[in-house]
Amino acid sequence: GEKELQDEITRIAREIDIRILGPNCIGVYNPSQKLDTLFLPSERLKRPKKGNVAVVSQSGAILSCLLGAIRAANIGVSRAIHYGNAADIDESDIYEYLAHNEDTEVVISYMESVGDGRKFIDRARLLSGKKPLLILKSGKGLRGQAAAYSHTGRLAGRYEVFHSILKQFKIKEAVDFDELVDAAKAISYQKSSKGHRVLIITDGGGSGVLAADECMKQGLEVAGVPEGSLKKLRPRFPSFCVLNNPLDLTAHARDEDYLVALHELKDDYDGFVIVALTGVTGITAKLAELVKDFKRSVSKPMVFHIAYEGLSRKLTTLLERARIPVYPSPERAVRGLKALLD
Amino acid sequence: GEKELQDEITRIAREIDIRILGPNCIGVYNPSQKLDTLFLPSERLKRPKKGNVAVVSQSGAILSCLLGAIRAANIGVSRAIHYGNAADIDESDIYEYLAHNEDTEVVISYMESVGDGRKFIDRARLLSGKKPLLILKSGKGLRGQAAAYSHTGRLAGRYEVFHSILKQFKIKEAVDFDELVDAAKAISYQKSSKGHRVLIITDGGGSGVLAADECMKQGLEVAGVPEGSLKKLRPRFPSFCVLNNPLDLTAHARDEDYLVALHELKDDYDGFVIVALTGVTGITAKLAELVKDFKRSVSKPMVFHIAYEGLSRKLTTLLERARIPVYPSPERAVRGLKALLD
Repeated sequence: GEKELQDEITRIAREIDIRILGPNCIGVYNPSQKLDTLFLPSERLKRPKKGNVAVVSQSGAILSCLLGAIRAANIGVSRAIHYGNAADIDESDIYEYLAHNEDTEVVISYMESVGDGRKFIDRARLLSGKKPLLILKSGKGLRGQAAAYSHTGRLAGRYEVFHSILKQFKIKEAVDFDELVDAAKAISYQKSSKGHRVLIITDGGGSGVLAADECMKQGLEVAGVPEGSLKKLRPRFPSFCVLNNPLDLTAHARDEDYLVALHELKDDYDGFVIVALTGVTGITAKLAELVKDFKRSVSKPMVFHIAYEGLSRKLTTLLERARIPVYPSPERAVRGLKALLD
Repeated sequence: GEKELQDEITRIAREIDIRILGPNCIGVYNPSQKLDTLFLPSERLKRPKKGNVAVVSQSGAILSCLLGAIRAANIGVSRAIHYGNAADIDESDIYEYLAHNEDTEVVISYMESVGDGRKFIDRARLLSGKKPLLILKSGKGLRGQAAAYSHTGRLAGRYEVFHSILKQFKIKEAVDFDELVDAAKAISYQKSSKGHRVLIITDGGGSGVLAADECMKQGLEVAGVPEGSLKKLRPRFPSFCVLNNPLDLTAHARDEDYLVALHELKDDYDGFVIVALTGVTGITAKLAELVKDFKRSVSKPMVFHIAYEGLSRKLTTLLERARIPVYPSPERAVRGLKALLD
């Protein structure tokens, strides 16, 4: 009976030109207009700050989890929209709205099923032509599909088909919740750019190795340092530094060393993964200042990996204020960079 | 010349029966004996509490990152050992030591290369026959291998060979840094057990779908609720609850609902993923108490996913005090459970 009621309400609304979001829906959060219909009390779910990321979700639970994770990851939100059963307004309508919304520079979208396939492709292409769109599709397996159906009343469809369509139209997809948030942080902070040649600079050998492995997994090239640049670098570093890629400054690294390497190699690479483990005493908060200046002159993507350590919180805060995203593992940093490289 | 010096020192030490750890090594941390040779000052790297996990690392950087992450993940450490260049003592010697070390119930091991292959297999089998051993191998690609070589002076070798050997002898492997820490938490908190049938209970539909997808990816079976159990459950829940697997209590969930489902279904499954999003008001800190009592009577593995929200810190603390690991995403919770199921 509930489906019939829903249809009747939708029909009446259409007749009198009223749009409906939901039902089965916690609504919207719009910090610009101070509009907040989420029925989760704010002591239960703290809202993220105002920012440039629109969060679109078919599931209310995932919307609330995304808002929590986004807040923890120091990302700001322009709109948060939960469309639930999508009796009237669906993901495609929301994409069209966000394509023209000036507060929104990035869109992340959690979905379990597609309503009108052609409309979805059309609007997703429109939107992703104007700003980065990143989709997390769930209901990939049979069990998940059954759960998705009972949950919002729409069939999830075959994931392989969905995946191929996104790939064909170069719309980006996250593999899971954590990657969605990590990638959202990167594309919220920096502009995407072309290329796949990555330079890794590290003060910890093992962290460089893990970052290099993850680059390979993500289809990014850890290209060797060109001979010409190598010659210029050699006299400026002690002999125990490994002047290769990863470039290993070792535990003797000082803030300035990163900048020497970055300035010398900035034209040889498309993106940069910087590992700055703060356990070693040569790394100070000054590194953030130096990198900020560098980043102002070079528009290529750059991410940091800083581990959970003494100085890490301060350095992280300073770097992120300069719109350089920081991640707690080498692999997550690489995946963040991957989201910025086409 | 450094290699020659290292060889000479090793030779002299052998003659006079002294064992050497390193060189290129930050040493050991042993909270039981209050022994701490790590040269990273404690304000730069806070040490984790005493616990049952031995952390073995070829890389000093990764050892320090692991100690930081392990501390953040609320895991305790029995020994932390960095063996660097392994001129004398290598990973295999350490495995043999830890196999007989009573403080240690779980071993995690980061390695870039294997010294003596036969010895490694022999000791890894000895150790993993006595307690869980979880290995993260890096240097998987060519770039990473080159970096690993320049970093510790041993060849990383072909990863495929290493991987096959671990698989053959059923020694567990983590795919990256984050999975190593997440899995370490699970096996540090609970005993592993047999089986692959997983029950997911959730108060958020989307979170259940993501958990089900990840189960599929990890080779875990999200088996349907048996007819007999279903009949008993039906009268005890409102009609809008989805009594399937995932079992979706919806945003109307109350603490007691989880327990009703767990008690009824405990014999039908091998492990449990509980999603308790605290944005909904029916979830309180009492849930930890109820689950703790349940866990005392049922020895099967159980993990929680709780998102970053108002009540989450308190509930997480209470659950982890009862040795139930909590993860910030559905997928990470499933991977934690996977580490506990053989």
